[in-house]
Amino acid sequence: MPISRLKNKIIGITLGDPSGVGPEIIAKALAKPAMRALADFLVIGDLNIYRRYQPRGLKNYEFLDLKNVPPGQFILGKANPTSARAAIEYLQRALEMIKQKKISALVTGPVCKEAICALGFKFQGHTEFIADYFKVRKFDMMFVSPTIKTVVATRHIPLSQVKDTLNIQKISGTIHLTATALKNYFKIKNPAIAVCGLNPHAGEKGRIGNEEITTIAPAIKKAQQSGLRISGPFPADTIFCPSIAKNYDCIIAMYHDQGITPLKAIHFDQLVNLTIGLPFIRTSPAHGTAFNIAGKGIADTDSLCAAIKLAAQLS
Amino acid sequence: MPISRLKNKIIGITLGDPSGVGPEIIAKALAKPAMRALADFLVIGDLNIYRRYQPRGLKNYEFLDLKNVPPGQFILGKANPTSARAAIEYLQRALEMIKQKKISALVTGPVCKEAICALGFKFQGHTEFIADYFKVRKFDMMFVSPTIKTVVATRHIPLSQVKDTLNIQKISGTIHLTATALKNYFKIKNPAIAVCGLNPHAGEKGRIGNEEITTIAPAIKKAQQSGLRISGPFPADTIFCPSIAKNYDCIIAMYHDQGITPLKAIHFDQLVNLTIGLPFIRTSPAHGTAFNIAGKGIADTDSLCAAIKLAAQLS
Repeated sequence: MPISRLKNKIIGITLGDPSGVGPEIIAKALAKPAMRALADFLVIGDLNIYRRYQPRGLKNYEFLDLKNVPPGQFILGKANPTSARAAIEYLQRALEMIKQKKISALVTGPVCKEAICALGFKFQGHTEFIADYFKVRKFDMMFVSPTIKTVVATRHIPLSQVKDTLNIQKISGTIHLTATALKNYFKIKNPAIAVCGLNPHAGEKGRIGNEEITTIAPAIKKAQQSGLRISGPFPADTIFCPSIAKNYDCIIAMYHDQGITPLKAIHFDQLVNLTIGLPFIRTSPAHGTAFNIAGKGIADTDSLCAAIKLAAQLS
Repeated sequence: MPISRLKNKIIGITLGDPSGVGPEIIAKALAKPAMRALADFLVIGDLNIYRRYQPRGLKNYEFLDLKNVPPGQFILGKANPTSARAAIEYLQRALEMIKQKKISALVTGPVCKEAICALGFKFQGHTEFIADYFKVRKFDMMFVSPTIKTVVATRHIPLSQVKDTLNIQKISGTIHLTATALKNYFKIKNPAIAVCGLNPHAGEKGRIGNEEITTIAPAIKKAQQSGLRISGPFPADTIFCPSIAKNYDCIIAMYHDQGITPLKAIHFDQLVNLTIGLPFIRTSPAHGTAFNIAGKGIADTDSLCAAIKLAAQLS
């Protein structure tokens, strides 16, 4: 079926690093009728690689073959320049197609940042790369699990830089992006949002750091004054307990490990990374290339299936 | 039964802040025959307060009544100086009795640090206070859950100070305390220990911070050379996934929220705080005073029961 014959809602899926688990889990996921029923799909990758995992023809979805992994150069299960370059080309092509409105949403397969950077690309991660491509300056990472959603106010920066990266304006921006995403994407009319402190026990009123007082509380107050149902700063080590977290539609964490570690600990297999602030839906599984198990037929598709499902649901 | 008639293994239990959930959960826990069968117990507190929760007499355990909460001054469910002072007195008396070998292990009820500090005490937390009392300089907090144990290399300090607090010597010290605790307390002959990175994704080989390279990896190497089965630094956001964590007897996190947040998210009710490095066993539930539910009869005893069980098992 040529791309032109696909129906209205087309979700693009980039293959990710061909040497990782991306091709395998995408082929496995799209082999499921329940997945294919969600939307029309266009996989952007290298068909030779893909056929290793889907030998018996595509089942009612389309494949855009960039033919960029010469068979002789293919290395399975290991980062390498050929695969890294191929992966970034899938992504670039997908972003062009989003711009041209040929696809309406994007699910990205896992890539190896290190190998992409080694090629000379400035690549902090999919999130930053995509935002940069669309000249979007306010964006954030939301992680969506079956029970808890979390947004991290800072992303892939050294822990020692978190303090100086946070300010009232940054946190306010994250709060508003979060509220907008909950309203527009998840159709929650008046979302309840919790905000974590930065320090252990949310600083204990200034005894363990003062960023809660100088920065986080003022941002929360500002958001409350603008009518948002938001509270905190809460100690991170208790707010993620399911019995407490269930009272909120989303928890805003101050930094990467604070927000993502508890979610992965509870829901590793079902966690979806959703970029908020973009002009289109972009999701991805919450795991990496998993080179060590690539091609072994044991990679789990749950997180990717959840990412596809969420992209279909929101777009 | 007077204290002198208690049998060999006496576990002291401090009541914690009388205005919090401590008295209620201790009374509830010791009402369980299964708990009392574990050891002999000596509760150190104020009997008038305790009788609110255990009106029908003590059941085969002893109570040391410090009579330090004048009924007219008692406020339930709120931090106040009288209760804070009472709580610190229970702790001080318990530590004396440990020194005098009148009790062999200690389970501490939750206190309000803020209220204790307001009285002029230098009280960062039970852990630091107890270590200081016994002039112990190398000690750490271990959190014990039914599936995962974790030790945090730094404790109650502002996040911005974590980087400068960590050095090879500090991490090496934590590694050795951890290994010793796993061997001596938990009888694990050759424990497998995982160490977290400090930065997101464990720094991605220096692209997101370099403490993994300059500090953490060298400490791990040193420990490996001394014969320990230890590995890392691992990204914190994946090492706590149960399917990965199960391969290790303990995970060493670099800071408070990195290690405690995922454990509480998975096992809030069953988490025990164990101080390692002390000359005796000290455990506590992993929750606080929970003033908001004090006296309502709804406080959960699971974490305290787990703390009592662990103290009995290890002492």
